Amino acid sequence: MEQRVSLITLGVKDLDRSLRFYQALGWKRGNKDAGVVFFQLPGFILALWSRAALVEDAGIADGNGFGGMALAYNARSRGEADATLNEAVTAGARLLKAAQETPWGGYSGYFADPDGHVWEVAHNPGWTIDAAGRVSLMPPG
Amino acid sequence: MEQRVSLITLGVKDLDRSLRFYQALGWKRGNKDAGVVFFQLPGFILALWSRAALVEDAGIADGNGFGGMALAYNARSRGEADATLNEAVTAGARLLKAAQETPWGGYSGYFADPDGHVWEVAHNPGWTIDAAGRVSLMPPG
Repeated sequence: MEQRVSLITLGVKDLDRSLRFYQALGWKRGNKDAGVVFFQLPGFILALWSRAALVEDAGIADGNGFGGMALAYNARSRGEADATLNEAVTAGARLLKAAQETPWGGYSGYFADPDGHVWEVAHNPGWTIDAAGRVSLMPPG
Repeated sequence: MEQRVSLITLGVKDLDRSLRFYQALGWKRGNKDAGVVFFQLPGFILALWSRAALVEDAGIADGNGFGGMALAYNARSRGEADATLNEAVTAGARLLKAAQETPWGGYSGYFADPDGHVWEVAHNPGWTIDAAGRVSLMPPG
């Protein structure tokens, strides 16, 4: 597992309210998809997404120490995503969900670190990961 | 407030256990300070720190929806840290702690976004922020 984070997801109750809040701080949305907001940060992405959807996607119970924030590690292939989840479990992580195909055309699973911090491990064919591990919403070129 | 995150802090129960976990994933520690672990990621930093200390520092109650994970925005000066906290409050954030001098020689305050996600806003004179907003543990040069 390379030393990097691809995405921070903030689970939110009201996506429009949260979008307005971060826009009021001067942030510019980087996507047009319904139901999720992406902000391109230097080298990684901050996402706003329904907290209920995040809980369901991660296969966890809410209100059980989960604060609604998750990290994600984007692998360069499905095989690397599987290998990373295996590596985490070998290191002592708890597997929350084995990687599987997602509705958005990717591949994703979840683990929890020793304190229960939630990590998604995903392969997203639409996102670019450069040699330094920086993730971009934009296609290369 | 520029569109960036300087630090993700994972509040942990047992710093050594968490350090061993991330080292087992292949990550290399970037500091030698006691009581806190920093990992240099591409453009920002992931920290492991006592969850109890994080809760106390942020001026919040644990177990009240807080999941032990916090984001930080490093400003380039104390004045910018104050201005950023004011900007967040104007945008609808809840001020958790006004910025004040810290034991590590910096200056730091906290706000909560509309869902209670915790943001520290800090000035750390020992860390470098480049023009693109990337934060590095190493001094320039």
